[in-house]
Amino acid sequence: MDIQEFFEQSAGKWFSHRTSHHLAFKQSESGKSDITIETLPKDHPEVVKLCEQYEIDPTQASCGARVSWNGTMEWDEEKHIGSTVLVSVPDAENPHEGKLLREIGYAEKVPVAGRYVMGSDGALTLITEYETMSSEERLWFASPNLRMRVSVLKRFGGFSMASFTSEIRMGGAKPVTQETETSNAST
Amino acid sequence: MDIQEFFEQSAGKWFSHRTSHHLAFKQSESGKSDITIETLPKDHPEVVKLCEQYEIDPTQASCGARVSWNGTMEWDEEKHIGSTVLVSVPDAENPHEGKLLREIGYAEKVPVAGRYVMGSDGALTLITEYETMSSEERLWFASPNLRMRVSVLKRFGGFSMASFTSEIRMGGAKPVTQETETSNAST
Repeated sequence: MDIQEFFEQSAGKWFSHRTSHHLAFKQSESGKSDITIETLPKDHPEVVKLCEQYEIDPTQASCGARVSWNGTMEWDEEKHIGSTVLVSVPDAENPHEGKLLREIGYAEKVPVAGRYVMGSDGALTLITEYETMSSEERLWFASPNLRMRVSVLKRFGGFSMASFTSEIRMGGAKPVTQETETSNAST
Repeated sequence: MDIQEFFEQSAGKWFSHRTSHHLAFKQSESGKSDITIETLPKDHPEVVKLCEQYEIDPTQASCGARVSWNGTMEWDEEKHIGSTVLVSVPDAENPHEGKLLREIGYAEKVPVAGRYVMGSDGALTLITEYETMSSEERLWFASPNLRMRVSVLKRFGGFSMASFTSEIRMGGAKPVTQETETSNAST
């Protein structure tokens, strides 16, 4: 699988269930969100705009996506609603790796350019360096309708948080009923 | 890394924090446990006994371990205390894969022989078929003192549970104080 195929397989609507383990406190926090992922063609105005923001020739982009979320975390009662655009820019010499541009970072809400590595096992690894922390996230499909993500956050040189997210496809191209969702996760 | 090295790196005492996502119910359950892992030489009486139980020549075993746990899960208030012996028996033609014998299975409390695959990325995958379900677990080290595990449980053909476990080394060969535990997770 290449990163375009990974983005395409990710397209649709997902129920996303995240649990973060705060390692120093030995406490966990849970969050739930509806997530919508749309692929964007590489000549889409938002893809072009994000490339230009990073002074990257937009023709070097391989694909783009818009990710929107609407959810809650356990420890605050606020709604978390937002969206961001992602663009992959493969390395010229090795298309399985490259830059991943983000309009808004996950760990810090600033524009951020990370690295991606598409593994031979179909897992996508994203490495992002922020000002005061770094994160490494591994994403993979247990099945076409069950996506898994594990991330670790390193702050001031020590691991501070490990997070796990299971994501069940809710519909997308082929809407499914509530009843068939779980069994669909098996296919 | 081969499976012996994985067992050796796992030896010691760990604080293990597990979260299970029950996919059909969209609910999560958390559990905490102290885990102790000791490696056993392949001529250890318990290793030999487990091989004999599966009618496997004990000289084919590559390594053994005893895993002991003492913890609680959120949904019942009972103490979960127990231990099991594991033995790896590599395939003759490919030592990166083989059988993993277990005195007691995790998902069902019966003796069970599963398969292991040691990946080139240092992750260990365990595939276990039970009577009415199957589980696939991936274990890896984010650092020598932070071990991660993700498992998915498939029951009646559909995924029913996804679990994530973060494990922080508490001591082992080099006992550490409570205070240095978290920073040790970074090394």
